[in-house]
Amino acid sequence: MITIAHLGPPGTFSEEAATVYGGPDAQYLSLISMPAVVTAIETGVATAGVLPIENVLEGSVTTTLDLLIHETNLQICGETVIAIRFYLVGREGLSLPEIKVLYAHPQSLGQCRRFVERCLPGVETVASLSNSAAPAEALADGRAAAAISSFRAAELTGAQFLAHNIQDRSSNVTRFIALGRKDCPPTGDDKTSFCFGFHEDRAGTLVDALDELAREGINMTKLESRPSKEVLGQYIFWVDINGHRDEDHVALALERIRAKTSLFKVCGSYPRYAKLNDLVNS
Amino acid sequence: MITIAHLGPPGTFSEEAATVYGGPDAQYLSLISMPAVVTAIETGVATAGVLPIENVLEGSVTTTLDLLIHETNLQICGETVIAIRFYLVGREGLSLPEIKVLYAHPQSLGQCRRFVERCLPGVETVASLSNSAAPAEALADGRAAAAISSFRAAELTGAQFLAHNIQDRSSNVTRFIALGRKDCPPTGDDKTSFCFGFHEDRAGTLVDALDELAREGINMTKLESRPSKEVLGQYIFWVDINGHRDEDHVALALERIRAKTSLFKVCGSYPRYAKLNDLVNS
Repeated sequence: MITIAHLGPPGTFSEEAATVYGGPDAQYLSLISMPAVVTAIETGVATAGVLPIENVLEGSVTTTLDLLIHETNLQICGETVIAIRFYLVGREGLSLPEIKVLYAHPQSLGQCRRFVERCLPGVETVASLSNSAAPAEALADGRAAAAISSFRAAELTGAQFLAHNIQDRSSNVTRFIALGRKDCPPTGDDKTSFCFGFHEDRAGTLVDALDELAREGINMTKLESRPSKEVLGQYIFWVDINGHRDEDHVALALERIRAKTSLFKVCGSYPRYAKLNDLVNS
Repeated sequence: MITIAHLGPPGTFSEEAATVYGGPDAQYLSLISMPAVVTAIETGVATAGVLPIENVLEGSVTTTLDLLIHETNLQICGETVIAIRFYLVGREGLSLPEIKVLYAHPQSLGQCRRFVERCLPGVETVASLSNSAAPAEALADGRAAAAISSFRAAELTGAQFLAHNIQDRSSNVTRFIALGRKDCPPTGDDKTSFCFGFHEDRAGTLVDALDELAREGINMTKLESRPSKEVLGQYIFWVDINGHRDEDHVALALERIRAKTSLFKVCGSYPRYAKLNDLVNS
């Protein structure tokens, strides 16, 4: 039996990502923080875990990058992309003009602003701690209350769907990584994540390192800089590339970059998530 | 009379940055959000404004970058660096072992964790909305209450200093930018910020663009990627370089990068903040 650790209570997008990765037979472990997910895997409490790494609107989840750069040698062994879709939910039979109170996580409320302004003008909003807490709180409220909810949280609480896909941007997706004690053998369509830094700060060092990828025709799919946490203006770079670290041209480029940098760490090779276009167009 | 807009109530680090930039004769305008600072300058309510852009531990302030990339043509006309130092404050005569309650902004509490664990074990913590609200709330509390405060907020509220420099990391600094309707003429020691993106996603495009800087011997002091907000994996790159956009070699490199990219925007040239080493060592 495998156990997949994830952030937050059942009904969150993190739990949805965990079920995609773990499948129907896995056991799930809901934890209160991202560092807790890392520690659970490191100590054998969980077999693997999922963490959000990037949202198309908000950008990188810096807590996840910093954990992988500074705090753990766990490896990325998979990635999955979850569409961030929100639903207006409440008691059965509740109609939109009746709604007086709206429970929502503040970030989710921000992502559904247009719907709320147009269809629930003047509604009183109450901040919930998570997308999964909101529907339960709305059902418990004696007034005509609704909630902004994920699909799963509505299912779990038994709230009825009053409106679907109420988010402002239909292209809103979050990428999650699966973390384990080992990464994945090559499948023929893989990605590799690694990070590196320099002691010295001079013109061209970064370009010089990245040029090794271009020389081998390797496409970079993500480049992010994170603070070294020591000196302002000193960075550690996070890079995602297409290809597996066991493929010859990738191994060669990584070895050359390692030789040019003062800090270098491969964070894992894993199968590329290939269904992004289907998801965005569905 | 010039008016400098900044985020948050008096006593915050943003206000401190505003006073550094504005000097003693300026007037200050305290606003509730970073977009409000931008709008105040755009509409002539303020002459200029300051926004945090980067913290040495947390990394870039993405709200600021996204405002400059997507929402405004205001120009960066200066930068300043503020040391993030925290103080334990409270009523006069209060001794550490007596303290039962500690008011603190959650992020500040996180940055003073070691001091709190060692010197205030078992203290009850109460979350405050800002570093400047915390000392006022501690003084108003009937119990033996203290607060984690900035220097200025303690001064403004009349709270007494009980311990100084209680932050875990002495190197904690935040860089602020000054924003105005125009950037600054060359001073001989300047920086330039710009951003760019590509329609196409192929190996080497980014390196090819950045290589124009290396060719001219221009040092890049910051490279950050932000989501395009349209497609997952499509980015806009933010770059800080040494040099002024009116210097020939900088103008040449920027023109060549513009020709290679599908989105290109200079966000301002401004005098480099040169006192960082003094600040960190003081």
